[in-house]
Amino acid sequence: MQRYFISENYQVKPIYQLTDENYHHIVRVMRMQPGEKMYVVFQDQVAIQAEIKEITAESVVVSELEKEVNPKELPIAITIACGYPKGDKLDLVVQKGTELGAHAFIGFPAKTSVVKWDEKKLAKKALRLTKIAQEAAEQSHRVLAPSIDLLPSFQQLVKQFEQFDEVLIAYEESAKQGEQARLAQVFERMAKGQRLLIVFGPEGGFHPDEIAAFQQGGASLCGLGPRILRAETAPLYCLAAASFAWELQK
Amino acid sequence: MQRYFISENYQVKPIYQLTDENYHHIVRVMRMQPGEKMYVVFQDQVAIQAEIKEITAESVVVSELEKEVNPKELPIAITIACGYPKGDKLDLVVQKGTELGAHAFIGFPAKTSVVKWDEKKLAKKALRLTKIAQEAAEQSHRVLAPSIDLLPSFQQLVKQFEQFDEVLIAYEESAKQGEQARLAQVFERMAKGQRLLIVFGPEGGFHPDEIAAFQQGGASLCGLGPRILRAETAPLYCLAAASFAWELQK
Repeated sequence: MQRYFISENYQVKPIYQLTDENYHHIVRVMRMQPGEKMYVVFQDQVAIQAEIKEITAESVVVSELEKEVNPKELPIAITIACGYPKGDKLDLVVQKGTELGAHAFIGFPAKTSVVKWDEKKLAKKALRLTKIAQEAAEQSHRVLAPSIDLLPSFQQLVKQFEQFDEVLIAYEESAKQGEQARLAQVFERMAKGQRLLIVFGPEGGFHPDEIAAFQQGGASLCGLGPRILRAETAPLYCLAAASFAWELQK
Repeated sequence: MQRYFISENYQVKPIYQLTDENYHHIVRVMRMQPGEKMYVVFQDQVAIQAEIKEITAESVVVSELEKEVNPKELPIAITIACGYPKGDKLDLVVQKGTELGAHAFIGFPAKTSVVKWDEKKLAKKALRLTKIAQEAAEQSHRVLAPSIDLLPSFQQLVKQFEQFDEVLIAYEESAKQGEQARLAQVFERMAKGQRLLIVFGPEGGFHPDEIAAFQQGGASLCGLGPRILRAETAPLYCLAAASFAWELQK
């Protein structure tokens, strides 16, 4: 069943209206008719199953059938920060990372980032990634579409550390030295509702100055097992591990 | 450091020779010189650090410096079987799945598979995927390049079940019904060196007849958490979860 995100908080109302892009998708792409069903997801993460009552020239009018009950979101809110990688790898991270439950995505210029994006390019890229996140959130039945924040500087990333309960840096050198326990330890000690930031480097990894800045900002380094993961694979590993630890093991 | 796989078992010898594709990559692509170092990985999964002694017209002659010691392979051998998905999604599964430690890959025609590949096409596809697996194995520092087996029929998949210690079917309906424990239970009860097969459907999922055949073959169904994962994301989830459970938590 299709899922549509609407930008209002849930309130009990006899009808709800879907407009603009949702309208286009329901009426023109899916060619749905009155009587057909869908999920409507509100900004405060309430999701309802709804039935189309009427299709007007500008809105699809639906009414609530029942609330969706199973929790779809990871119990800890994980933000994935990536040093800008080459090409369209960030697209893959956002699409797959959204399916795997990421709460938000941050991009930042790392020292070894090959791409140099100016403000205009960043704004365009953010728009595209927001759309990818939205589509993946609908497809994977989530109640939240991750936000995208593409930063113009490295410093702005470190400034955000204080907003999180834990900050981890996925660091290849840690993995090489056999550090394999920290990710599991951090999952173990976090509580439901807490916020975790995990930072990943681009293809070339992190510069020692960046590692020093991260550590000064209170972050700790972690390895992700004995195999070397590509820049775009490592975030997916962490999200799958979090889901396994929090949703399958507990 | 580059890794090269050679098709002989390890024996203590004063020199080893790399030829053909390895030769081309070392001499023409990397333009390496005598004195430079690399990893050489033998068929029996022994890896050594080696130094180039001489480059002749047809072979690169190297000698052993030391053995690589950290284990790079997952303690349980996980084979990923995918119902043929659309487009080049299998490429992504093989590349990322190899990074994440898969032991082998199997493809099979599922009832909802849209693509219909004849023998010639399967052979061509297998060759391509073998190359992708080889490259990803080198890149991720593994000592084993996963094998690729593209089956012409569904029945041949079920026949192979008896070669494994455990067979799991990733089934969306199980996930929807809240089955979230089995994957963790199976990881828990398996012992080092055992073999696990996990079977994934194409985009359209499995037909009830296929599920019945799997269950008759002794497989059990498992969910992968509350979010709906795409066909190509689910195998990566399982491999990351296995690495987390076996390599980070233990």
